[in-house]
Amino acid sequence: MERVDGRAPEELRSVSFEAGFQPHPEGSVLVRWGGNVLLCSVICEERVPPFLAGKGQGWITAEYDMLPGSGNRRIRRDRTSISIKGRSSEIQRLIGRSLRQCVDLSLLGERTLTVDCDVLVADGGTRVAAITGGSVALGLAVRSLLDSGRVEENPFVSLVAGVSMGLVDGEPLLDLCYEEDSRAAVDMNLVANEAGEIVELQASAERSTAPVEDLIGMMGMGLSAIVDVLVPLQRAALEP
Amino acid sequence: MERVDGRAPEELRSVSFEAGFQPHPEGSVLVRWGGNVLLCSVICEERVPPFLAGKGQGWITAEYDMLPGSGNRRIRRDRTSISIKGRSSEIQRLIGRSLRQCVDLSLLGERTLTVDCDVLVADGGTRVAAITGGSVALGLAVRSLLDSGRVEENPFVSLVAGVSMGLVDGEPLLDLCYEEDSRAAVDMNLVANEAGEIVELQASAERSTAPVEDLIGMMGMGLSAIVDVLVPLQRAALEP
Amino acid sequence: MERVDGRAPEELRSVSFEAGFQPHPEGSVLVRWGGNVLLCSVICEERVPPFLAGKGQGWITAEYDMLPGSGNRRIRRDRTSISIKGRSSEIQRLIGRSLRQCVDLSLLGERTLTVDCDVLVADGGTRVAAITGGSVALGLAVRSLLDSGRVEENPFVSLVAGVSMGLVDGEPLLDLCYEEDSRAAVDMNLVANEAGEIVELQASAERSTAPVEDLIGMMGMGLSAIVDVLVPLQRAALEP
Amino acid sequence: MERVDGRAPEELRSVSFEAGFQPHPEGSVLVRWGGNVLLCSVICEERVPPFLAGKGQGWITAEYDMLPGSGNRRIRRDRTSISIKGRSSEIQRLIGRSLRQCVDLSLLGERTLTVDCDVLVADGGTRVAAITGGSVALGLAVRSLLDSGRVEENPFVSLVAGVSMGLVDGEPLLDLCYEEDSRAAVDMNLVANEAGEIVELQASAERSTAPVEDLIGMMGMGLSAIVDVLVPLQRAALEP
Amino acid sequence: MERVDGRAPEELRSVSFEAGFQPHPEGSVLVRWGGNVLLCSVICEERVPPFLAGKGQGWITAEYDMLPGSGNRRIRRDRTSISIKGRSSEIQRLIGRSLRQCVDLSLLGERTLTVDCDVLVADGGTRVAAITGGSVALGLAVRSLLDSGRVEENPFVSLVAGVSMGLVDGEPLLDLCYEEDSRAAVDMNLVANEAGEIVELQASAERSTAPVEDLIGMMGMGLSAIVDVLVPLQRAALEP
Amino acid sequence: MERVDGRAPEELRSVSFEAGFQPHPEGSVLVRWGGNVLLCSVICEERVPPFLAGKGQGWITAEYDMLPGSGNRRIRRDRTSISIKGRSSEIQRLIGRSLRQCVDLSLLGERTLTVDCDVLVADGGTRVAAITGGSVALGLAVRSLLDSGRVEENPFVSLVAGVSMGLVDGEPLLDLCYEEDSRAAVDMNLVANEAGEIVELQASAERSTAPVEDLIGMMGMGLSAIVDVLVPLQRAALEP
Repeated sequence: MERVDGRAPEELRSVSFEAGFQPHPEGSVLVRWGGNVLLCSVICEERVPPFLAGKGQGWITAEYDMLPGSGNRRIRRDRTSISIKGRSSEIQRLIGRSLRQCVDLSLLGERTLTVDCDVLVADGGTRVAAITGGSVALGLAVRSLLDSGRVEENPFVSLVAGVSMGLVDGEPLLDLCYEEDSRAAVDMNLVANEAGEIVELQASAERSTAPVEDLIGMMGMGLSAIVDVLVPLQRAALEP
Repeated sequence: MERVDGRAPEELRSVSFEAGFQPHPEGSVLVRWGGNVLLCSVICEERVPPFLAGKGQGWITAEYDMLPGSGNRRIRRDRTSISIKGRSSEIQRLIGRSLRQCVDLSLLGERTLTVDCDVLVADGGTRVAAITGGSVALGLAVRSLLDSGRVEENPFVSLVAGVSMGLVDGEPLLDLCYEEDSRAAVDMNLVANEAGEIVELQASAERSTAPVEDLIGMMGMGLSAIVDVLVPLQRAALEP
Repeated sequence: MERVDGRAPEELRSVSFEAGFQPHPEGSVLVRWGGNVLLCSVICEERVPPFLAGKGQGWITAEYDMLPGSGNRRIRRDRTSISIKGRSSEIQRLIGRSLRQCVDLSLLGERTLTVDCDVLVADGGTRVAAITGGSVALGLAVRSLLDSGRVEENPFVSLVAGVSMGLVDGEPLLDLCYEEDSRAAVDMNLVANEAGEIVELQASAERSTAPVEDLIGMMGMGLSAIVDVLVPLQRAALEP
Repeated sequence: MERVDGRAPEELRSVSFEAGFQPHPEGSVLVRWGGNVLLCSVICEERVPPFLAGKGQGWITAEYDMLPGSGNRRIRRDRTSISIKGRSSEIQRLIGRSLRQCVDLSLLGERTLTVDCDVLVADGGTRVAAITGGSVALGLAVRSLLDSGRVEENPFVSLVAGVSMGLVDGEPLLDLCYEEDSRAAVDMNLVANEAGEIVELQASAERSTAPVEDLIGMMGMGLSAIVDVLVPLQRAALEP
Repeated sequence: MERVDGRAPEELRSVSFEAGFQPHPEGSVLVRWGGNVLLCSVICEERVPPFLAGKGQGWITAEYDMLPGSGNRRIRRDRTSISIKGRSSEIQRLIGRSLRQCVDLSLLGERTLTVDCDVLVADGGTRVAAITGGSVALGLAVRSLLDSGRVEENPFVSLVAGVSMGLVDGEPLLDLCYEEDSRAAVDMNLVANEAGEIVELQASAERSTAPVEDLIGMMGMGLSAIVDVLVPLQRAALEP
Repeated sequence: MERVDGRAPEELRSVSFEAGFQPHPEGSVLVRWGGNVLLCSVICEERVPPFLAGKGQGWITAEYDMLPGSGNRRIRRDRTSISIKGRSSEIQRLIGRSLRQCVDLSLLGERTLTVDCDVLVADGGTRVAAITGGSVALGLAVRSLLDSGRVEENPFVSLVAGVSMGLVDGEPLLDLCYEEDSRAAVDMNLVANEAGEIVELQASAERSTAPVEDLIGMMGMGLSAIVDVLVPLQRAALEP
């Protein structure tokens, strides 16, 4: 099967990171991943949520949103509705859980790092692009906290990266673009750390059910892409 | 390792369904699953959401909530906050996606079936209990639509059921109760159909990462419980 | 006139209380009152609302809601709307005022008891069923606070119970079911304490006006039911 | 007992109506009732709420609010909070039910009359002042609809008026001002029509319970004030 | 060109202030300005917004709203919508900025003066009427704070007043009534202090653009009205 | 006086436009203006707001927001609050009014063009940068509508551009950066069309009042920058 952009089944789209796009946040990176463009920023505030007050540890939380013109029809801003869109909520909870694996929160002190992921242009796989870019922005932010002496011992544990896979016309494909994603029978998102250990796994078969063997195959395909391609790109972006 | 309630690692808690608890909805079932008590109801309305208008097909959506006294501290009602709690939103999206696999929406006509899952008492695994009970309530509702002649051809495709697994002290366990769940390093929810094909899979390693082999083992353990135990119980509950 | 369920004009429907339905709240009772099923829970929190801060006394507040499948058409959850439904607000204010008569707030310490009343199945008179059941749950909660030593001197003053009456086809009837209620010209709710003193009285003539003598007759009918039937049932439910 | 403003126990404060205060609404009246100042307006819109669509009848609804500077501490506007204040909601539901007794809705056509009651200065009893003034504004609005030919047959059935009573230091008093109201053990609001038939009755004993005889006495006191004083004043205000 | 009410192009409508309309606020004034009727109140609270905490200075903020019956069609209350109307928000920000020029905030102590401006009847130019009346209410409130000793040194710096101008059929007119305003090509609002120095200037050309000379002419016309007419009327209203 | 970035008093910062940054909207431009980075997109939808239904004309509306990491402290997203921030509301109303001058709405057909202006990095003057960039994006969108035949006759009337001025230490300066803006006594925003006619003018003296002559001087300075510098840059960006 020929892919719409001519890639091989296990081939990632091109991925690049532009560090320091915004001057104010402790960490900021513009991510270009195929047709996607995202801005990930990490801002450090000297407070923790109520459930952590007085425990001497920090917190990492994430917010995810799409700009109105990022997709192929206008995306209504959340503020015009009574509640945050369910999809945004689900995605930002996934990002937050994934990125809390990057940092030893007990070494962070009573601080909150908020990772804001805003999609400027969307072309499939924005949630894993947000996790992958957010991990780079976290790395930049931790370095800034160390450099300025706000944090003394390095709390950074591991980069994490994510990638999506799908079953399209019965064939497992890596890193689906929007056009492929809208035809996929099964949709999987995988997040792993530098050591290839799994952090998050989500598979959903809205258009069809899937035998367990197919899922196992897609997991292997994703782990290779994370360990062999994405993590080295993240490391390069963190080089000073 | 001894489990807190003396179960074997692959042993489900007791599960029972009381059909027809509420007289008004097309389908209603009270689910008792270990210490959990949930009320699942399915109500049919003669309308579809705007994105399906005029397409001649139906829709299934789900809402999930916990009563204030269901947990070990009072759960604030959503209405006192500006937005639906992120956790509820994430769960009800999972329930909706899972249950849309039960029914051929093109045979439903322009109707919406809303599956309301309300937790009266919570003890770990409420989201999979909601899916499993919701599927029974859907079966009851579809039968009611057929009996009353509102729907002519049977749109029911398959039951689906869900179960949770976790890695506790390095050991994979089936169907975690609340006390086990709060100690689990990795948490997995699996939803499958009668044929044992996977509908949804979510694994999350908030306290630790997991090697891929452990995840594959847990998937097998869950599939057996669904196919061998839960689906037969669901079928029995649907017997007239 | 024959009543729809064959009762005499001054006859209550059957009422029963299942104490301890939920394990976590300080007090919890499942109320079955004719076709109604309600869950009343009382949870104690070590805080008071701002207007009572530092005054050394406690507070009792109530919330009331109906599950989506409890009535004969689906009841929208409050969270999907910008404001709590006016009816729910009016009812929970009535419940809160009534139940504050049960307890000497100055003996409670700086604690808030929240009485959550959730209707699982509705069949007329849910607000008075909530007050009657809520008073039982309060009694259970106060005993739990005394047993655990959180409160030293017994603050419980009196049970309160409520009942509804209506004028149907010119005849005063006690304890209207939904079908009768929807035909009533005048609708009265009465709440009284163990001594038969009135705590709350609300009468409304949406379909017709009423001469004052009819209202006085309905008040007497309700007081008898409260003192002779409901309070003894409440006391029995509180027996250890 | 001497009342704070020297009135006799069954004496009303002075009440006056200034018709036509606002030029645009179909009916508008500025009510001065003792220290209270309220603006009641009635606006007619050519629509009905969804539940009445196509039934050929009209509807009357009410909204009640207090200006921020009307009381003895600043009253927060509803818009700064997520939900309408419970007290406002309860009051405007009472006003709406009461005023729907004034008009034969089947003669109104598919129109909605919205009665807006805004309190400019508050001094106890604003809800019954709103009902009493709102009934005058309704009378003005109905006349305007008849004069302009929008409605053909006179739908006005009866004025309604309301008054409050309270038990202060064991003595029943008519028409409590704010200072008396804050000391009352029992608080009653009564609404009746021109014929002295009861439309709404609400009694609440937040600070103490009340024997039924006291309530019956207060009802008589209120009915006299409505029939003998308030209704004649309303009629005079409606004189062209 | 003949104006609709016969005024000369540079002639103000009649303006009057009734001080002390509400008894509770520190300052209160009923403003009648042509067909407009507004109630402006100033309430002092012993708190400051978070961004001023601990800085030893005070704050002035404003809220603006229109009663539902004030205009020629019913104005929906803000609370029925999710967000404050944009127009109200824009106006109350203008009022707040203007009135903060009246007072030396550093002499006010840690207090907030809230200026509530509610429009009872609207006839064009309500925002400048609110500023002009709000400045009088502020003067009354400051005097009350001085008289009661809550503030020691007089913080009042200057009255401010506002007026609107418009370009109607090519001719600059002062103080447009509603009918003129709805035909104006350019709309200007000017706020100045007692010395004729400009505090706020807003000009908007929704129906046409304007040469800069016309704007300069309108500014002069407005400054004269403020200094020669409005400020003397404000001073008279503040005479004890 | 030396400016912080060495510019002359009447010197603009460098301004550039990158057309087509987003592929989906009808018009999209990335604006770089000194330290500011904004993304302006224009999306065309085949609907009009209710007040224009059936009138055969179009509408232009604007939304403005800042990304959380754009400023020197994290900017909370609107969705976490009940109402849109007042400042955003005021700004987007200004943008909408200004940009409606660019297009003859009667030639647009029943379409709405929504101009979304999102600030990626903020450094003073973002509202005028949004107007200036939004006008370019509108030009691109109109061309796209003409090219695709959705609109037949060219509705574009004129570009508009905006610039800010301020009085800093008594000296009028053009195009204030954030650091200058936070010290300015008077703050002016001016919007004009290609012909140098004024579309919007807003001046505000929060820290001090201003003599009218200073305002007139600043207006002249701004008009030159618009006509001589900004409009030619806009025209170049629209060159195919």
